[in-house]
Amino acid sequence: MAIRALIWSGDALRLLDQRELPRRERWLQLRSWQEVAEAIRGMAVRGAPSVGIAAGYALALAALHGEALSPVADELVATRPTGANLHGAVRRVLALDSADVDAIVREVRTIESEESERNEAISRFGAELLPRGSTVMTLCNTGSLATPGLGTALGIIRHGHATGRVEFVVACETRPLLQGLRLTAWELQQDGIPFAVIAESAAADLMRKGRIDAVVVGADRIAANGDTANKIGTYMLAVLARHHGVQFYVAAPSTTLDLTISHRDQIPVEVRPSEEVTTFGGVPLAPPDVAAINPAFDVTPAELITAIITEHGVHRAPYAFEAAAVSAS
Amino acid sequence: MAIRALIWSGDALRLLDQRELPRRERWLQLRSWQEVAEAIRGMAVRGAPSVGIAAGYALALAALHGEALSPVADELVATRPTGANLHGAVRRVLALDSADVDAIVREVRTIESEESERNEAISRFGAELLPRGSTVMTLCNTGSLATPGLGTALGIIRHGHATGRVEFVVACETRPLLQGLRLTAWELQQDGIPFAVIAESAAADLMRKGRIDAVVVGADRIAANGDTANKIGTYMLAVLARHHGVQFYVAAPSTTLDLTISHRDQIPVEVRPSEEVTTFGGVPLAPPDVAAINPAFDVTPAELITAIITEHGVHRAPYAFEAAAVSAS
Repeated sequence: MAIRALIWSGDALRLLDQRELPRRERWLQLRSWQEVAEAIRGMAVRGAPSVGIAAGYALALAALHGEALSPVADELVATRPTGANLHGAVRRVLALDSADVDAIVREVRTIESEESERNEAISRFGAELLPRGSTVMTLCNTGSLATPGLGTALGIIRHGHATGRVEFVVACETRPLLQGLRLTAWELQQDGIPFAVIAESAAADLMRKGRIDAVVVGADRIAANGDTANKIGTYMLAVLARHHGVQFYVAAPSTTLDLTISHRDQIPVEVRPSEEVTTFGGVPLAPPDVAAINPAFDVTPAELITAIITEHGVHRAPYAFEAAAVSAS
Repeated sequence: MAIRALIWSGDALRLLDQRELPRRERWLQLRSWQEVAEAIRGMAVRGAPSVGIAAGYALALAALHGEALSPVADELVATRPTGANLHGAVRRVLALDSADVDAIVREVRTIESEESERNEAISRFGAELLPRGSTVMTLCNTGSLATPGLGTALGIIRHGHATGRVEFVVACETRPLLQGLRLTAWELQQDGIPFAVIAESAAADLMRKGRIDAVVVGADRIAANGDTANKIGTYMLAVLARHHGVQFYVAAPSTTLDLTISHRDQIPVEVRPSEEVTTFGGVPLAPPDVAAINPAFDVTPAELITAIITEHGVHRAPYAFEAAAVSAS
């Protein structure tokens, strides 16, 4: 299956609003780069590769309206500071050095199809790491909503299921925005892959009981040494996996690598509003004025990662990503 | 502060419905033991000591209606199989060997005031373990809603705040039923104790950043060797605390000890419905027919616990609870 969550329609970006899924398949019709920026900030579109694609189309809309691209690019990059793909896609469009809308759209479509091909390679390399009949735990959504094509971690799960390596999936619900419960569950159900959801707090208990063979997650930015920023809770799963002797894999296209960063402390981590934790669907859950500490991401040190899977293959510590990154730039 | 969540009114049990807090302070008027059993099962009342008290009053209602107590006791004990206090309170009432309502109510009130005194002792012993100005992480709700009086872990936090040892509290929201976000936040706010809430998935990140000095949690049942059943996520926090060199304390009255159980594998762990995870307030969050793995509790092995605090003092491995338990029986 390949759900398409982003469709260019000539003068607008049609975008499947991921905040409303699975209750409603609502498509937004975004006619200005500002509307796309707001959709990124508000997480109507999310997943590092999909955010990059959306930003590319935002630049096409800016060109369509005759706006200078460079300041728009700066504003787009500021919407979600952690993910590497947003930077990368924007850089590629700017490198065209053209305000021709068709040229920009062609470039973004090229990025999309390249990402889709990367996903297929990642899916094959990753699935081969899993023993037959595995139960795999994953976090957040890393499928066709997060990236064009099969997905990264979810691509591995899809390919693994098709080849008998993945028998069951445990999808962490992924607080606060429940991308696992809402989006990964939706994708897995459509593909007929057997799964259950859990609250993140149950992950350790399942590992202790020996019910998890591997954890496979995506990434938002990977430093040159392998340190990996990803959805909050990833680092927690990595510590728990190490404690229980469970394999812990990160799956990401080379476009998520950021070799300008050598260590986790240099990765900017976005902090999101308290209300994401303290309210649900506009309904307050906590007493009034309660503050939440709500980092959107955490950073997992390379030493807790069994292997990182890109479209170039399976990388293990000490990481030497140079070849992989060059081909992606 | 001592909120009272359970009030005997002569022919009914008035019970503050904890499912509705903090949005609404709704009091249930329960006139039969079956209604109390349903309130326990549905978690209108929760927290191991409070559940024990509610069950005691359920027996008073059964006596009031001339019902044989022993079969009622069996049904009550089956409502929530993990917590030790429910068993204990029911045993104490049955030991009266009397169907006299006043005698039963007197006994339950005695249990309540004993529990309240235990909380005060626990609070003092526990607070002394914390360095001045500590930031303490806690899970679920262990305050005046969960137990008569100050609370166990929250009692330690209250006493610690009053004596300058606790400067800030990080309350884990506690999926799926959000007792931390709803109830602990409500109690902390009323006491003016500075705090923030987090999703459980952010706990590891805060520990890695050195922002947590100690984790203090309650317990639902503690085996003779110190293995501790408590809210799902407790074991996760214990593993994370060990990884990060953070102190991990369990606070519970001696009535939570179960010396008939020598090891964690003998503690029955209640599994609750999928819908607690997959829906919110009756609204489906996940696609239809998604199953959740939803254990209400996990069991933390004694070796991950820095110390267990009862009203008798601070216990450390190897645990020798005999003296503590005898006084509680």
